[in-house]
Amino acid sequence: MPQPRNEERRRALADAAIAILAGQGSHHLTHRTVDRRAGVPAGTTANYFPQRDDLLDAAARRIVELSVTDMTTAAAPTQTGPPSRPDLAGLLGDSLFAAATVLRERYLAIYELLLEATRRPRLAETLATLSESTVQSTLALHRELGLGTTRAQVEAMVTLYGGALYALVTGPGAETITRDQTRALARAIVTGVLGD
Amino acid sequence: MPQPRNEERRRALADAAIAILAGQGSHHLTHRTVDRRAGVPAGTTANYFPQRDDLLDAAARRIVELSVTDMTTAAAPTQTGPPSRPDLAGLLGDSLFAAATVLRERYLAIYELLLEATRRPRLAETLATLSESTVQSTLALHRELGLGTTRAQVEAMVTLYGGALYALVTGPGAETITRDQTRALARAIVTGVLGD
Repeated sequence: MPQPRNEERRRALADAAIAILAGQGSHHLTHRTVDRRAGVPAGTTANYFPQRDDLLDAAARRIVELSVTDMTTAAAPTQTGPPSRPDLAGLLGDSLFAAATVLRERYLAIYELLLEATRRPRLAETLATLSESTVQSTLALHRELGLGTTRAQVEAMVTLYGGALYALVTGPGAETITRDQTRALARAIVTGVLGD
Repeated sequence: MPQPRNEERRRALADAAIAILAGQGSHHLTHRTVDRRAGVPAGTTANYFPQRDDLLDAAARRIVELSVTDMTTAAAPTQTGPPSRPDLAGLLGDSLFAAATVLRERYLAIYELLLEATRRPRLAETLATLSESTVQSTLALHRELGLGTTRAQVEAMVTLYGGALYALVTGPGAETITRDQTRALARAIVTGVLGD
């Protein structure tokens, strides 16, 4: 079992890796650039994550951990009973807005990883596991909220949400994204997948 | 005005660039790797596309040119009159299936370019122009088909379609994509954006 201190250091290194992925692209992610970015002695990152694949995995896991926490937090306090359909679209729309603006770096990093994974089987496997856990968490959340969403519907929503986010963070006018725009997209996703 | 022969060569070089982007990632795209991949004498690519930005632009333009041609061809012969809503979803679903399977390389390349563009203003500008022309072509096609789709609806459909495609080409199980899956996604996009 790693010490809490170690866990904190691992997270800081993963965060530095995320910043490099988003800012410079996956090719620039090395043990050395993470050491520098995190301001730790040379060799520290290699000590925690011996292979480059370990480092890629750590970044991916950290992003998904942060996303699931955000999703659960966003859904929890605003609901007192089962929400109606429009609330789900509202939640998704606001989450999409935050993801495309203040959290943009995090998602640029995951999109770097997804492309890198088309050439790295181990990373692809990690991302597949993480994608499955995102589907599971979303499904659990929908059940908790009293929604009868099926697994196939959750998968379709995750695909369309992730895709819309990709278009928003890489598309023209990433700086001009509005809450109206993300809510309209979320409404289209929810209505399209769950029906009226 | 370039000679037809030159145009052919430019297209061949752009196609080689696309294959490198998809297979190895944007970092590996250089004049040299394109020369090698296209089997042309060293220096040929630099002769046609002096700057690396010219090469990135050429690849992006070629992908969009191919996509617009495919879209127009797909829509044209199957329709004798204004299609009903399900036909639009069918067209989109089949296009999504082809894009995610046989044309996968082309779209992996454009996603590489979209990420690279977050760090290259000139490429971002080209992609923004191309994105606008995709919206315009789609809008024109919808009008031709007698559909009253608005610009905002076309934008939302392009965003969701592009996004779903990204998830399909990078996601787990890119090899297990089925026509049922892409049709369900297309139906969700069309219904979600245009209503029932």
